[in-house]
Amino acid sequence: VKLDLTLRIIEAGAIIAFALSGFLEAARKRMDVVGVIVVAFITAFGGGTLRDLLLDRRPLFWVEHQEYVVLIFAVSVAAMALMRGGRHQFTERAIQIPDALGLGLFSVSGTSLALEAQLPLFVASLMGVITAVFGGVMRDIICNEIPTVFRDHRPYALCSFAGCWTFLALHLLGAPSLLGLAAGAGTAAGLRLLALARGWTLPAWPPGGEGGG
Amino acid sequence: VKLDLTLRIIEAGAIIAFALSGFLEAARKRMDVVGVIVVAFITAFGGGTLRDLLLDRRPLFWVEHQEYVVLIFAVSVAAMALMRGGRHQFTERAIQIPDALGLGLFSVSGTSLALEAQLPLFVASLMGVITAVFGGVMRDIICNEIPTVFRDHRPYALCSFAGCWTFLALHLLGAPSLLGLAAGAGTAAGLRLLALARGWTLPAWPPGGEGGG
Amino acid sequence: VKLDLTLRIIEAGAIIAFALSGFLEAARKRMDVVGVIVVAFITAFGGGTLRDLLLDRRPLFWVEHQEYVVLIFAVSVAAMALMRGGRHQFTERAIQIPDALGLGLFSVSGTSLALEAQLPLFVASLMGVITAVFGGVMRDIICNEIPTVFRDHRPYALCSFAGCWTFLALHLLGAPSLLGLAAGAGTAAGLRLLALARGWTLPAWPPGGEGGG
Repeated sequence: VKLDLTLRIIEAGAIIAFALSGFLEAARKRMDVVGVIVVAFITAFGGGTLRDLLLDRRPLFWVEHQEYVVLIFAVSVAAMALMRGGRHQFTERAIQIPDALGLGLFSVSGTSLALEAQLPLFVASLMGVITAVFGGVMRDIICNEIPTVFRDHRPYALCSFAGCWTFLALHLLGAPSLLGLAAGAGTAAGLRLLALARGWTLPAWPPGGEGGG
Repeated sequence: VKLDLTLRIIEAGAIIAFALSGFLEAARKRMDVVGVIVVAFITAFGGGTLRDLLLDRRPLFWVEHQEYVVLIFAVSVAAMALMRGGRHQFTERAIQIPDALGLGLFSVSGTSLALEAQLPLFVASLMGVITAVFGGVMRDIICNEIPTVFRDHRPYALCSFAGCWTFLALHLLGAPSLLGLAAGAGTAAGLRLLALARGWTLPAWPPGGEGGG
Repeated sequence: VKLDLTLRIIEAGAIIAFALSGFLEAARKRMDVVGVIVVAFITAFGGGTLRDLLLDRRPLFWVEHQEYVVLIFAVSVAAMALMRGGRHQFTERAIQIPDALGLGLFSVSGTSLALEAQLPLFVASLMGVITAVFGGVMRDIICNEIPTVFRDHRPYALCSFAGCWTFLALHLLGAPSLLGLAAGAGTAAGLRLLALARGWTLPAWPPGGEGGG
């Protein structure tokens, strides 16, 4: 029960950061108020909802905790009013830190729930990655873009993957759950921020090469 | 049982209008016969299917009622033959009235089913909106467009939302179910048609402003 | 049990061909290594996963058989290394035969599982088509294209549909399951290859006609 409570708090923290990133992309596409709310909502809850559909878990997080849904509605409307008023607070850079934190938190919560559902280890790590990145994937699909996470060559899903395996390794070694969750989330978030700071990139296709077209 | 039957009839009415709107967008994209059938099908059943996946309801409406599936196949093929023959019957304007009716009917049926599944009120209203608008969202995603409902600044999801709350308010006041369903569907459909007639729009981002890019 | 085993083997064969087609489209879009793996994965497992969500079957194929997931990871990374090295092995033409085979195998496995789940016949045939084509639909949506299967006017979903009904007809006639599966898969795959070889096309909208815009 205590572990479950911890996971709940973890998910809550990540939700705000992800909603904001959805809000920003919707605003960049000049969507209307319905669009920004829905995209914020889907970015925040999409990954966890997909995980729950795949695991057949119910009730969904946002069905059980409608206070978060209301919160996202309120935050989106407020942020839209603020931005229309001419203030520039929400740059992509400003949300990098909460977004990295969200990445880490969603990764370990997804992996942990998959483990509870008796999934094999590798699949459990994928469920962590799905939880962490598919909200963003849905956001980009709705905004009619190729998902950033698949094409920008900056490590994002890989950081999540590393965090999931840190958590799994500590779990297999019999470490306390809270330690595993903290270490896994910290690994994913830390690697992500480090990758951004150092400008690490994934191997690219050669220019004009066979991958081209 | 009687209420359930009413809900079934309500969904059936909405399905035809939505299928037609899917057919039209697929035709505009010059899809082949497979494309127009599938897009008509997904526009009609996508919202309800997503709702049922989220609520874990089975069997799905179209699985239980394959007669509607066959009907959509037949209508799509007939409409395609008709349009290829050079007749212009199905303008966007012509389907505004059945589409508004579909919006109202799907809104209250989705909310009502969510209520039966013991969902909290706000989430139940969202399930109504999801039922009503996500068929169209899927249609636009498949047609490689940003979903109209998120960007055209004409009230659509908001009309659905108002209809859902009209139904919920009457439900909380203890009104008979049929009255609530009729009032809710009427509110959503009426507001939608009024919004179109009067040219109501949602607040937009300022031109060239922060939302731009 | 023996039938179930056969179905499992059938799905395995199709998965490799579909993963390769996903890999190729992701490479054409110059996605990074995460993108090519995920798109390969979704192309291979997307149709079957959607079918299982619609039928409420668990565990999902790839959750139960994580060896395939690992295989797709390994194959994608190896293929990416190979292509970056400048070799052109994987042309669209080269995967037409395994892709046609995959189409046939997924069609009958999907229909057969739907029949086991007591679905009505027409819906069961649709489940076969969904299993066979929706991996490719998801691939194209993620790659920000209108799904090929809906617009290229070359029979693909229709071949799948014909294969599903061949299987269903033999099932209704009381033929042995293996015969039905083989005949259905063969019909779909054969029709697809024949359609490609002969250049068969579906009826198109007239140029500049009503479907245009």
